[in-house]
Amino acid sequence: MGHGIAVIPLPAPMRAALDAAALAAAAGEVPVGAVVMRGGRIIAISSNAPRALHDPTAHAEILAIRAAAVALGTDRLSDCDLWVTLEPCAMCAGAIAHARIARLYYGASDPKGGAVEHGPALFAQPTIHHRPEVFPGIGEGQAAALLRDFFAARR
Amino acid sequence: MGHGIAVIPLPAPMRAALDAAALAAAAGEVPVGAVVMRGGRIIAISSNAPRALHDPTAHAEILAIRAAAVALGTDRLSDCDLWVTLEPCAMCAGAIAHARIARLYYGASDPKGGAVEHGPALFAQPTIHHRPEVFPGIGEGQAAALLRDFFAARR
Repeated sequence: MGHGIAVIPLPAPMRAALDAAALAAAAGEVPVGAVVMRGGRIIAISSNAPRALHDPTAHAEILAIRAAAVALGTDRLSDCDLWVTLEPCAMCAGAIAHARIARLYYGASDPKGGAVEHGPALFAQPTIHHRPEVFPGIGEGQAAALLRDFFAARR
Repeated sequence: MGHGIAVIPLPAPMRAALDAAALAAAAGEVPVGAVVMRGGRIIAISSNAPRALHDPTAHAEILAIRAAAVALGTDRLSDCDLWVTLEPCAMCAGAIAHARIARLYYGASDPKGGAVEHGPALFAQPTIHHRPEVFPGIGEGQAAALLRDFFAARR
């Protein structure tokens, strides 16, 4: 019997978010991808696209939340989860709170721009009106590698 | 000669933002309005509309920034100012930073949801990547009255 390394497969929503991040990179955008799930079904998948859309708010999380809300016909996504490859920034963390997202799963940490475990740590603020359950570090290695390769190629 | 009370007229962009806030109230949305200006010209005017649009991100500021960015064909609004009737929340303050808005003028303070002088005080965070010049309290009385009347009518 050999000494096999157990490979724990990533959850399907994070695999889809990583694929969306890779699509962003191919389009010249910072590689971040996001997926909104409800009860085991994918409601929306989005790639970061501020340049292509001429929209400074077009982070993957915002696009996925907007698409899911339109698809479900409501501005409250209380029974939805968000999977994203990078720790959300303040704008996106605020949107997650407004949308009442139930659970947030994310990949790589972002010490510079993150606002969940870094900077304003938005969900720990006393004035925040909704706190999702937060699960960091899922697919962290793959998410960070996509970002590293993207910025290395531009230097 | 009587003792007249000097009435200082509001700047035109804030008057337009207040009009947009009143339109939101008439549509059953929390009355907040926002205007993006560039060099004395109005680029975008938006009313808060999360319910009508089924979009939890559809705050007046986000809609105005998105409309201005599309109108100008860029995701950087470095030469633009934002006028909004209420202190921006974390989501909108984050969007203002991403959009590189030069100056932020706002009306009423928001101790519960605000993220400029309250809560996470986003532009004072060491990790924030852009800080607009901030001018609070412009048209504060009118902006606060619109909100007060709106919530009083719903109680």
